[in-house]
Amino acid sequence: MQKNLEKYAKLLVRNGLNIQKDQLLVVNAPIEAAEFVRIVAKQAYDEGAKNVHVEYRDEELALVKYLNAPFEAFKEAMQWKADGFEQMASENAAFLSITGTDPDLFKNVDPERIAEANKANLKSTEKFRKYTLNSKVSWCVAAVPSPAWAKKIFPDETTDKAIEKLWDKIFIANRVYDEDPVGSWDNHIKNLTEKVDFLNNNQFKSLHYKSAKTDLVVELPKNHVWAGGGEYNESNVYFVANMPTEEVYTMPLKTGVNGYLTSTFPLNYSGNLINNFKLTFKDGRIIEVEAETGLETLKKLIDTDEGSHYLGEVALVPYDSPINNTGIVFYNTLFDENASCHFALGAAYPTSIEGGDKMTDEELEQKGANTSLTHVDFMVGSKDMNIVATKHDGTKVQIFKDGDWAF
Amino acid sequence: MQKNLEKYAKLLVRNGLNIQKDQLLVVNAPIEAAEFVRIVAKQAYDEGAKNVHVEYRDEELALVKYLNAPFEAFKEAMQWKADGFEQMASENAAFLSITGTDPDLFKNVDPERIAEANKANLKSTEKFRKYTLNSKVSWCVAAVPSPAWAKKIFPDETTDKAIEKLWDKIFIANRVYDEDPVGSWDNHIKNLTEKVDFLNNNQFKSLHYKSAKTDLVVELPKNHVWAGGGEYNESNVYFVANMPTEEVYTMPLKTGVNGYLTSTFPLNYSGNLINNFKLTFKDGRIIEVEAETGLETLKKLIDTDEGSHYLGEVALVPYDSPINNTGIVFYNTLFDENASCHFALGAAYPTSIEGGDKMTDEELEQKGANTSLTHVDFMVGSKDMNIVATKHDGTKVQIFKDGDWAF
Repeated sequence: MQKNLEKYAKLLVRNGLNIQKDQLLVVNAPIEAAEFVRIVAKQAYDEGAKNVHVEYRDEELALVKYLNAPFEAFKEAMQWKADGFEQMASENAAFLSITGTDPDLFKNVDPERIAEANKANLKSTEKFRKYTLNSKVSWCVAAVPSPAWAKKIFPDETTDKAIEKLWDKIFIANRVYDEDPVGSWDNHIKNLTEKVDFLNNNQFKSLHYKSAKTDLVVELPKNHVWAGGGEYNESNVYFVANMPTEEVYTMPLKTGVNGYLTSTFPLNYSGNLINNFKLTFKDGRIIEVEAETGLETLKKLIDTDEGSHYLGEVALVPYDSPINNTGIVFYNTLFDENASCHFALGAAYPTSIEGGDKMTDEELEQKGANTSLTHVDFMVGSKDMNIVATKHDGTKVQIFKDGDWAF
Repeated sequence: MQKNLEKYAKLLVRNGLNIQKDQLLVVNAPIEAAEFVRIVAKQAYDEGAKNVHVEYRDEELALVKYLNAPFEAFKEAMQWKADGFEQMASENAAFLSITGTDPDLFKNVDPERIAEANKANLKSTEKFRKYTLNSKVSWCVAAVPSPAWAKKIFPDETTDKAIEKLWDKIFIANRVYDEDPVGSWDNHIKNLTEKVDFLNNNQFKSLHYKSAKTDLVVELPKNHVWAGGGEYNESNVYFVANMPTEEVYTMPLKTGVNGYLTSTFPLNYSGNLINNFKLTFKDGRIIEVEAETGLETLKKLIDTDEGSHYLGEVALVPYDSPINNTGIVFYNTLFDENASCHFALGAAYPTSIEGGDKMTDEELEQKGANTSLTHVDFMVGSKDMNIVATKHDGTKVQIFKDGDWAF
């Protein structure tokens, strides 16, 4: 176990963040992950990091606040902390974010409070998030099991056993058991790059998604850029922003989305699960929302601002992936989004259009990109998903067949 | 147990910080204390706090840094975080600091690294600490057992049992078992105030400490102010800065300390224990240092700056106190200093001289107060300690006899 934890930590520090000599590594982690965070810190120092600064968060404490603080408290955020993150980003720190908290933790909380708190936090961190959205700095999202998350996936096991089983799945999804995990990742990134190159060379006009529960046409803007695997930050350092990652993604034309889609995985948003929801689009904007559970939370999410009524990301993920082959639903977007074709509500990554990282929000909108305070992925892929792409000359190319890559 | 934890939390929030409606409470705590911190948060919201902001620290992670980071890393501190604390203090937040980490954690760390890190941290937090040193805001230091600390005190018990026993001692020291703990504290504070009044009315010229191992004359500056129990912050809110607290204290005349003293409790400084040390003073300055263990750490502490070569606090504590009556050494200054007469190396509290909270450092020095980046308490009291005070007219008054108050 200790060996695998060290291997995983090394993957995050080397393949994920590609930490550089004398760099500052900033880790954002739940307190339950402390033991693993210390292993990451050791690996980072071994790779030459100058300092590892950790900001711990306590979700149980957040619950105490949600249930007991006056409503006004949720309208404020700690601006000085957001400014500190911005400053560290401006000094070229690398950012590791650890997920893995209880998917149901906030299910009894007034959605109004969560929405208000999310808005305040998103606003306070807007400048910092430009650094990650635009890939100016290296950043990586990874997971560590919390007791509650593990029990959600393996409810019949003891807590210790559930955690052990979840670690096993995380190791599988991240290729930790491979003889040479660092080499396996390099190879995996190469394969994703081939898909990216094919899609970029074709510059498709639109994608038509069709399955039993989805029928959606998504237009792509001129000069859109597909990406996947990793990317280069402003200092020309290659990093991988999600581990695991199986997706290749770009941005949709903001006003070019028509039809409907149905989610295929539960969406864990702010400690609430949203299940089996259907969104209908007209000229990009959501005009109808249904959900089996979590409808109120979903509506609040869509109402964050104007941009959260539109899509900001189109991502292709084969059904046949190491993650999906674990046979479990993770109730955690980092995994579930990499097991399934997905979209995101909210902001597009500016890097998904040529020259976008140098554009203002107004320029991005002019080019057809969506802007918003939020960016939330959700899953639509299934075994019966077919995607047909159309070129500008009208030629049609099937790119997904029965849930998997068709080429 | 849960009930006692809630009572203790309530004491800290009400008698310690005296939290006000819509106030921000800032908690600084080790991650091991998370469970108790959540109880404190609940109590604070019940008392009307608007928000409870917690900064968690991870001492094990600090150890990883001490052992693995390059030396240059210790010359820097997170200035943005210190600035954030200053900002919250300027907005009249209340500050709770939780102690209780492993007294031996850093015993194998190069003292040079610890000294460098302490200096950088003290410098970065200098402006914030003016708020607490000058009692501008409410603040309170309290303790929560960590597994390592509990095992240090009760090495023969299992970890769970050791923690339980340490909680019991903390509850005793804090009068948690009393029928009406809040009322008991009010009464205790009243008793301390009587001692304070007697000492202030007498305005002694000097104190002569005498025991088998100590022979020291400490002069007191003109217009010195004794305090004890609690005090009023800038908003006229009464708070108690240490829980437990048994001391009454003032400042010495910086250049008026002559003779020698010997420590009577181990001093836990930065994860290192300093045992049985002897300091010799001439005109206030330390001219000789000896220690059975931890000499290097002690020397580094004294070398922090010029002011750390002088005393900054004189505190009287009876030998017969609830803390001493627990019969254990806590290896934690919060408890041990309240079981024994003590001094502090470094800065005097400006409030220990009339009008001091409005004076600049230069003015304080002119009045005979010591200034320094640091302030570290250490214990000298013992069962055979006698203290004779001398008035300006030469009259002598015995104020301590055989370790306890003589009046």
